Amino acid sequence: MFKIRSLVTALALAGSVSVASAWDALPTQADSPADNPTNAAKVELGQMLYHDPRLSSTGTVSCSSCHNTMLGGEDNRSVAMGVNGQTGGRSAPTVWNAAFNKVQFWDGRAASLEEQAGGPVTNPIEMGMKNWDEVVARLKSIEGYKPHFEQAFGKDLISKDTVTKAIAAYERTLITPDSPYDRYVAGDKSALTKQQVRGMEKVAELGCTGCHSGPAFNGPGMFQKFPAIPNGYFEAQYHFSKDKGLAEVSKNPADEHLWKVPTLRNIALTAPYFHNGSVKTLDKAVTLMAKLQLGKDLSKEEVADIVAFLDGLTGEFPKQKMPTLPGTPGSTFN
Amino acid sequence: MFKIRSLVTALALAGSVSVASAWDALPTQADSPADNPTNAAKVELGQMLYHDPRLSSTGTVSCSSCHNTMLGGEDNRSVAMGVNGQTGGRSAPTVWNAAFNKVQFWDGRAASLEEQAGGPVTNPIEMGMKNWDEVVARLKSIEGYKPHFEQAFGKDLISKDTVTKAIAAYERTLITPDSPYDRYVAGDKSALTKQQVRGMEKVAELGCTGCHSGPAFNGPGMFQKFPAIPNGYFEAQYHFSKDKGLAEVSKNPADEHLWKVPTLRNIALTAPYFHNGSVKTLDKAVTLMAKLQLGKDLSKEEVADIVAFLDGLTGEFPKQKMPTLPGTPGSTFN
Repeated sequence: MFKIRSLVTALALAGSVSVASAWDALPTQADSPADNPTNAAKVELGQMLYHDPRLSSTGTVSCSSCHNTMLGGEDNRSVAMGVNGQTGGRSAPTVWNAAFNKVQFWDGRAASLEEQAGGPVTNPIEMGMKNWDEVVARLKSIEGYKPHFEQAFGKDLISKDTVTKAIAAYERTLITPDSPYDRYVAGDKSALTKQQVRGMEKVAELGCTGCHSGPAFNGPGMFQKFPAIPNGYFEAQYHFSKDKGLAEVSKNPADEHLWKVPTLRNIALTAPYFHNGSVKTLDKAVTLMAKLQLGKDLSKEEVADIVAFLDGLTGEFPKQKMPTLPGTPGSTFN
Repeated sequence: MFKIRSLVTALALAGSVSVASAWDALPTQADSPADNPTNAAKVELGQMLYHDPRLSSTGTVSCSSCHNTMLGGEDNRSVAMGVNGQTGGRSAPTVWNAAFNKVQFWDGRAASLEEQAGGPVTNPIEMGMKNWDEVVARLKSIEGYKPHFEQAFGKDLISKDTVTKAIAAYERTLITPDSPYDRYVAGDKSALTKQQVRGMEKVAELGCTGCHSGPAFNGPGMFQKFPAIPNGYFEAQYHFSKDKGLAEVSKNPADEHLWKVPTLRNIALTAPYFHNGSVKTLDKAVTLMAKLQLGKDLSKEEVADIVAFLDGLTGEFPKQKMPTLPGTPGSTFN
């Protein structure tokens, strides 16, 4: 992994990555891993757990609180707010199409949706549970969950493993196909406006697609350095480099300021932008990316064209039923 | 209103209120007021607004955060948690069947669902918006709301009036019929167990139904004094009298410790209990109510029978679709 990453980074820094792939439409289904095949009962249970605030210490924060499935899959905040009003240093990434991320979290420290789902629940400033034993004990106290776990996992007990597998199975269904862009690449040439097509061509011409390629615009590499080109003027305004990205976890200086390449899908809905949510508008985000990653100054028209194209990446949200969560029986947890 | 209330209180205190009504099933529809007739577009918009955390200063608290429509209509917390992790002194009442409350809030200070909906949004420890001008400006900035308001209200603008009317219209659909009790009174004598029928008879015999009568078990009076019978031992444990109820608003000593008679519907799902959420279990709540309101000591068996009956008041939650909220367009609010 580290070898591939370094190679991609080096190529991108040298400005030599070509637009590898054709324009791809978003798949309507995501593959599930061999040890967690998707089934309907698992998805249904996962949807319940994803929306259950009782997975947090205060009973007020569910996965959906920060990765809101009624909105653009996140919270439109610069940094997320967890239990007791606490905030961290990073902006919540969207859950929509997270199934197509090669790694999860801004710093890519989780290799799968299952691994990711195991994180926030016990993070003291996110969902604040002491440990997974406490999570499992609480879920076991909610009797109505038992048949759902049995249907999803057979005889397997309620555990960190089954909880995170169910949540991941649900998240694999959170796909937003049929954006104007998808309809365009499927052959409907009227699906994008002329301005959007100009923006699409500009994105390729500038080299944005060197990193933001593939159907979710988040490949081919997993990681990228940001900012790639140091810029004191913008650093003073946005403090992008304060957070060392992957190096905060790996403690490896080579990983400093490496970040997961985020999807561009539904990006019009997920302001504010960047890992620290410091940029409020999409036109500013585009301007900064061109400058800090590609060393290019865009004209106002070019920015407008690219933003118009990015608007065309907003897909259709799947229609979901609202889950009914099993009741807390006759007692409370706080 | 005050005259009726005083009369009911006096009668209840004298222990002379008889069980006025027959056992009533829950209506499946709630009447709407003349100035806010329910229509489908209004309900759909109301559902969106009810679940939209952007109605709070932090973008993290929606109506559903404390009155959770995926659970028992509240948050299973002793006191609700609003923006920035702040807590107040009262437990969130359930939204299920709130349409059948004669007055709203624990202290009954709102005469309608519309009036209630106008409160928490600008309460500094609940949803924390500065004022309704700010709420309206924010909703106007979310372009996708406009067609929904037009469909619901014709040419009327986005305003406190239309927002609260839409939310109230949605809340009038949050009815939970078909509980075992409802099926029993409709003629299915197998719907309640023998123990539950014993509990039902006990509830009438003790006089609980003097206040908790009618289909939602929240009538005939609007207000009741609690605790009706002072008890230093329990006061030291549960601090029921610290909060003066309606008098906190009216500043009238005659209103001290007057509370809305809360519904018993779905009470098995809404622990912890009482206005300050100080009692964790339903059997303790039943024991305390008998002692503090009726001056009676119940046996363990009587408590178990009544709790079994109350379990029979858990109804069927309507199947809802998950709303898709219009996106925050290209900028953020915090």
